[in-house]
Amino acid sequence: MSKTGARSHITAMQGYTPGEQPQGGKVLKLNTNENPYPPSEKVEPSILAAVQRGLERYPDPLATAFRIQASQLLDVPPDWILCGNGSDDILTIVTRAMVGPGDCLRLPHPSYVLYRTLAQLQDARFHEVPFDRQWRLPDSFASHEPSPRLVFLPNPNSPSGTVLPPDQVEAIAQRLSCPLLVDEAYVDFAATHCIDLVRRNANVMVSRTLSKSYALAGIRFGYVVAQPSVIEQLIKVKDSYNCDAIAISAATAAISDTHWLAQNRKRIIEQRQVLTQAMRQRGFHVPDSQANFVWCEKPSTDLRQLYEQLKANRILVRYMRYDDWPEGIRISVGTPTQMEALLTILDSISTT
Amino acid sequence: MSKTGARSHITAMQGYTPGEQPQGGKVLKLNTNENPYPPSEKVEPSILAAVQRGLERYPDPLATAFRIQASQLLDVPPDWILCGNGSDDILTIVTRAMVGPGDCLRLPHPSYVLYRTLAQLQDARFHEVPFDRQWRLPDSFASHEPSPRLVFLPNPNSPSGTVLPPDQVEAIAQRLSCPLLVDEAYVDFAATHCIDLVRRNANVMVSRTLSKSYALAGIRFGYVVAQPSVIEQLIKVKDSYNCDAIAISAATAAISDTHWLAQNRKRIIEQRQVLTQAMRQRGFHVPDSQANFVWCEKPSTDLRQLYEQLKANRILVRYMRYDDWPEGIRISVGTPTQMEALLTILDSISTT
Repeated sequence: MSKTGARSHITAMQGYTPGEQPQGGKVLKLNTNENPYPPSEKVEPSILAAVQRGLERYPDPLATAFRIQASQLLDVPPDWILCGNGSDDILTIVTRAMVGPGDCLRLPHPSYVLYRTLAQLQDARFHEVPFDRQWRLPDSFASHEPSPRLVFLPNPNSPSGTVLPPDQVEAIAQRLSCPLLVDEAYVDFAATHCIDLVRRNANVMVSRTLSKSYALAGIRFGYVVAQPSVIEQLIKVKDSYNCDAIAISAATAAISDTHWLAQNRKRIIEQRQVLTQAMRQRGFHVPDSQANFVWCEKPSTDLRQLYEQLKANRILVRYMRYDDWPEGIRISVGTPTQMEALLTILDSISTT
Repeated sequence: MSKTGARSHITAMQGYTPGEQPQGGKVLKLNTNENPYPPSEKVEPSILAAVQRGLERYPDPLATAFRIQASQLLDVPPDWILCGNGSDDILTIVTRAMVGPGDCLRLPHPSYVLYRTLAQLQDARFHEVPFDRQWRLPDSFASHEPSPRLVFLPNPNSPSGTVLPPDQVEAIAQRLSCPLLVDEAYVDFAATHCIDLVRRNANVMVSRTLSKSYALAGIRFGYVVAQPSVIEQLIKVKDSYNCDAIAISAATAAISDTHWLAQNRKRIIEQRQVLTQAMRQRGFHVPDSQANFVWCEKPSTDLRQLYEQLKANRILVRYMRYDDWPEGIRISVGTPTQMEALLTILDSISTT
């Protein structure tokens, strides 16, 4: 036990550092994959309605209104859905429920850095299976050794934006003898999803967030879809009132606006195409993305320096240096104006 | 590993059941110690301001605005404060940071049932030290055996509403060789608090919530005060964005309205006195409460039946049956009208 009373593996670990979140100041923020547009117009009235219903009362512990609405959207019963305070809360709940000290959590590499942290917090091991240079996973991702207790598969993946098709994901799930969580944080920008797999495979869970495609990072709302026997265990692990009354109301309104989602998706995908082409024209290697960001490598250029130069020009992108992988910058897809501003600054930097 | 993939101690446990939260319908809700008044008038404009600033952005991971405001209120530096998604999130973070499998978590009995659940979730043991019938704690609460890793002390306690004075709490902290978390969820209704102890004792933490005294159970906001070396470890364990943008804004506005708090406190304490006297006149044993609820025992009466009868009359109170303790009902303090309604129904039940 350390002086602070913290467990030794906590004291020893670094902790996860989220992307920079400058509070105030004019910055073009393309570093944490937020949506560049405000949320559906249905959100604000739903927030006011929650305020009118009375904030002095505890919220519904299971966010029933959202579960019913999402049930219609996803075509699964409400009790196949569990809501969380952002999908980070969902990932935390699932990890705590399934991975104990010394256990093994499997994840691809490079992917969402938080997964490592979640394993470390449980005093568990993590087993990283590297993507190949075309962002495909080897067969060993589904192997029984070193006997994982839980496997995380971000799909679309970050930072690449690449996707494994559902049949490949299902093949992985069927070979595994432990649960597989498919993290679909970015799936609304992709061509396929894995909800159907949950119906056929008791060991598949799919997590989602409203932070990206519904432009609601500020309210913290995510959910997981799994078979009811799994949900039942996860409920024990979550905080009793993990979703607040305003977030439940806002999230329920947001997912009811399918027109808004379709339009937003179309705009983002258009600009993703623009950005991908523009970066390729400038000599970057950019894999085809199905998310709301693109991953850019360029071996001939010092990308950390480029990141710093963009930052000096008040444009924030995410610089990433993963072990055994070329450095890169991950750029969130913005509005047409934002993408033009980025490219203008980028060109001015390159030519100076 | 069970069929669901959940760890065996999770599968084996029951999970915590929060008080009933009927959604909709006219019920006089006196069962979960919510505030009967709406929050400060400063809250609603602060929520609208957060919406205007843009919900598409992630919130500040450390809720800096709140920390600065609370720093002034509590007279501790901002980095002595960590915010959570309700104080349940704080209790979860502290438990995960300090208590591992097989470790011992100490708590008084009867007290907040969630503490047991938090220990169980960590596959830890809990060591309950019973209050005496005057709700005082024996010396063994501070003993080194069976070497606790963390001690929870709700002060005021639930369900009793009773308080240990700060000098007694400090004596406990000084004898313990592990951290002591003083859970001050109800402290704004009490005559004393333990923030000063944090300055003098590195092993003391004080947790608070805005759910009760600030009438904001719906937004989920709590915090812990501890020395910075402790806060530093807790930050590693919390979810990156555990507090949402609206909750941060609402909580910051709420604690700035000291006039509202003083007035609310006065009203609640007045009605607590009314309720205590009224229940005593009706033959209940009611300890002096310093919280916003009273605990009522009456050995000659079937209190579960009374609870059911009140419920049939659309009044919800909390019936509690702790091991080795007389059954009781815990009644939240409401408005004068609500207290009159309760007593009218109570008398009609007793005489039928």
